[in-house]
Amino acid sequence: MTVEIICVGTELLLGNIVNTNAAYLAEKCAGLGLSCFFQTVVGDNEDRLTQVLTCAMDRSDIVILSGGLGPTEDDLTKEVAAKVCGKELFLDENTHERIVEYFVARDITPTVNNWKQALIPEGAIVLDNENGTAPGVIIEAEKAKVILLPGPPNELIPLFEDKVAPYLEKLTPGVIRSQTIKICGIGESQAETMMLDLIDSQTNPTIATYAKTGEVHIRVTAAAEDEKAAGKLLKPVVKELKARFGQNVYTTEEGVTLEKAVADLLLGSDLTITFAESCTGGMLSARLVGVSGVSDCYKAGFVTYSNKAKRKFLGVKKHTLDKHGAVSEQTAEEMAKGAALAAKADVAVAITGIAGPDGGTKVKPVGLVYIACYVKGKVTVEKYQFKGNRSKVRESAVSSALGLTRRCILEYFSKVTFDKK
Amino acid sequence: MTVEIICVGTELLLGNIVNTNAAYLAEKCAGLGLSCFFQTVVGDNEDRLTQVLTCAMDRSDIVILSGGLGPTEDDLTKEVAAKVCGKELFLDENTHERIVEYFVARDITPTVNNWKQALIPEGAIVLDNENGTAPGVIIEAEKAKVILLPGPPNELIPLFEDKVAPYLEKLTPGVIRSQTIKICGIGESQAETMMLDLIDSQTNPTIATYAKTGEVHIRVTAAAEDEKAAGKLLKPVVKELKARFGQNVYTTEEGVTLEKAVADLLLGSDLTITFAESCTGGMLSARLVGVSGVSDCYKAGFVTYSNKAKRKFLGVKKHTLDKHGAVSEQTAEEMAKGAALAAKADVAVAITGIAGPDGGTKVKPVGLVYIACYVKGKVTVEKYQFKGNRSKVRESAVSSALGLTRRCILEYFSKVTFDKK
Repeated sequence: MTVEIICVGTELLLGNIVNTNAAYLAEKCAGLGLSCFFQTVVGDNEDRLTQVLTCAMDRSDIVILSGGLGPTEDDLTKEVAAKVCGKELFLDENTHERIVEYFVARDITPTVNNWKQALIPEGAIVLDNENGTAPGVIIEAEKAKVILLPGPPNELIPLFEDKVAPYLEKLTPGVIRSQTIKICGIGESQAETMMLDLIDSQTNPTIATYAKTGEVHIRVTAAAEDEKAAGKLLKPVVKELKARFGQNVYTTEEGVTLEKAVADLLLGSDLTITFAESCTGGMLSARLVGVSGVSDCYKAGFVTYSNKAKRKFLGVKKHTLDKHGAVSEQTAEEMAKGAALAAKADVAVAITGIAGPDGGTKVKPVGLVYIACYVKGKVTVEKYQFKGNRSKVRESAVSSALGLTRRCILEYFSKVTFDKK
Repeated sequence: MTVEIICVGTELLLGNIVNTNAAYLAEKCAGLGLSCFFQTVVGDNEDRLTQVLTCAMDRSDIVILSGGLGPTEDDLTKEVAAKVCGKELFLDENTHERIVEYFVARDITPTVNNWKQALIPEGAIVLDNENGTAPGVIIEAEKAKVILLPGPPNELIPLFEDKVAPYLEKLTPGVIRSQTIKICGIGESQAETMMLDLIDSQTNPTIATYAKTGEVHIRVTAAAEDEKAAGKLLKPVVKELKARFGQNVYTTEEGVTLEKAVADLLLGSDLTITFAESCTGGMLSARLVGVSGVSDCYKAGFVTYSNKAKRKFLGVKKHTLDKHGAVSEQTAEEMAKGAALAAKADVAVAITGIAGPDGGTKVKPVGLVYIACYVKGKVTVEKYQFKGNRSKVRESAVSSALGLTRRCILEYFSKVTFDKK
């Protein structure tokens, strides 16, 4: 079954915002086993939207539109979709009531325009929107199913997850199930080489890789007649991939990020962590704090950009800085140890490097980064040479630091377990 | 003149990557005064690419394609474009030589496939690519100008800036010049209200607003017969906008970010800065460190996520935390003062708030953030109530903190200047 994505909005045509909705919808549809061959962006213009929608309905089974469901006169996605599908618009009592409730709860007086959002094409399926006043709509036209979703991601995403995904699942005979194996510490091309035989020989489930900064996500997707059969197809492939990538697999769960995996490791074992950052300037710390609930394992962190700060707050020796420089294995090690001591933390991660564009030399070029990880007395230091501009070097350093932290904690656990035996 | 953007790539259709090229090209084209009504994403498939390109050439004057210029068999953008435009492909000696040089310089042996990249449609303009082996190509077909660019942003962007933008400029009679006024501390709708009369009355130059987190960018674009005339049209409007938004304007220069404006203020006056972050966990610090050369004004920063850390590293009083809580005006003030003292900095910015999703109460709901800015003894504290999820609340807090820092430093300067008089 084929799906096509149309994003409506002048702000997209002007390059005002990046089209993250298209990427989100495309990834979700791929996960549901739907083939997407076209994505289009068009403005809030009746003629052009009509042209694009008509064309999409001619060539695809399902058309998902996002945006243009607002209360203003400019917003005309629903009106155009109804017209193209040959449906009249009617006031939907339930939606009307929901809009009243929405405004009452927020103590706002609705404008006359808002009632426009309660108009629904004849016979359409209404998808109640918990996060806004524009409901989602599914029009089951003869040529294609047309699905309308509001543009703001915080409304579109929950509507898709809760209502559209289950609807799309029912359209295809059988079920599509996918599982993602997230790995770190291995590049995309190396990961592909390590499973080339599987990729080539597999048709169901299929295997696709998604490269992220410092990570690779491997999605295994199976099509089967029911849940059980899909699980049976997935299981051996997921097992094989987990075996091949071993400890580099940090999760196989949806929605778990690398920083969440690290936070879970810490929280699950009552370990506390601290950070000492130079070139990343707080990015590593900020990424962990992105995980809700980290206050139980993360108390304090240090940004020590100058040599003085490295000495004052982390106790890095003057001799070390003079002899080996701020970007060195020795400094990274002392930063980690000093941070652990200052914050009284079990785990400490230090990053020092040359993010560029200036500051590089032949011996210490831009992109050179040392990352040290201290776990209960033991320090591991790794040397990295990253490519790209200042921001890319810093992002790569942060991802690598999270990967190293995870490995060092696991190593500590295995040693503790071994010692206990 | 109308332009249309086609991005070619399976990774876009699968939602593997976000289409930043489309946003970049759209913004640049808008800046050149071109109207963009459609953007399309299509895969590396001959039939579908032919269909999309033919349609685009029928309805637009200029079609820009990105991606699919690589050396593999999958890459067929150039081949399809040549076919649709009725042009044969010929080996371009200059491009061939450049590819040889590229590989020699990198000590890599090219594969047979690589020579494919030296094939150019008959009569086309070749745009030498300094950052890769695929040159850009402009085919001046009867129906439309077709511009082919490589997909990687680090190749596409320089090619567009250096070669495509000047080419597009020549297509339109006269010149298009634009200037961007970047403001902070005022929301998009308020900014629009403040210049509604200008937006409504202006046709040349035009005024467009771009909302960013915590910022609004106002782009003024003039079309005129030459550089001088365009400047003459821009000048009074830019002057008027600068007068209306006053100190909220942080730059009118291309490429200057809010953090760069703050860094420039600090560096220009030999002031040093430090940060004390709770809910943002290092994001504010990391943003300033994103500016190259900040080591002269930024020495050290603190992430004090727990109350204990706030006390130990910043000297926040136990009494203050007990009486007012960690998220309070008083705590923010003491955090800023304590950070300034600990880091011996002239300026200190502290952020404490409830980023959510948990931790909110009726009195202190999710999104409540206090930001304090200390400048040479004087502290200003502001209370904010942000909307959105955890990451949005944190990003908003960081942008607001940068805006507040800028205002407090300017205020300090004006007082110093006044005192001197």
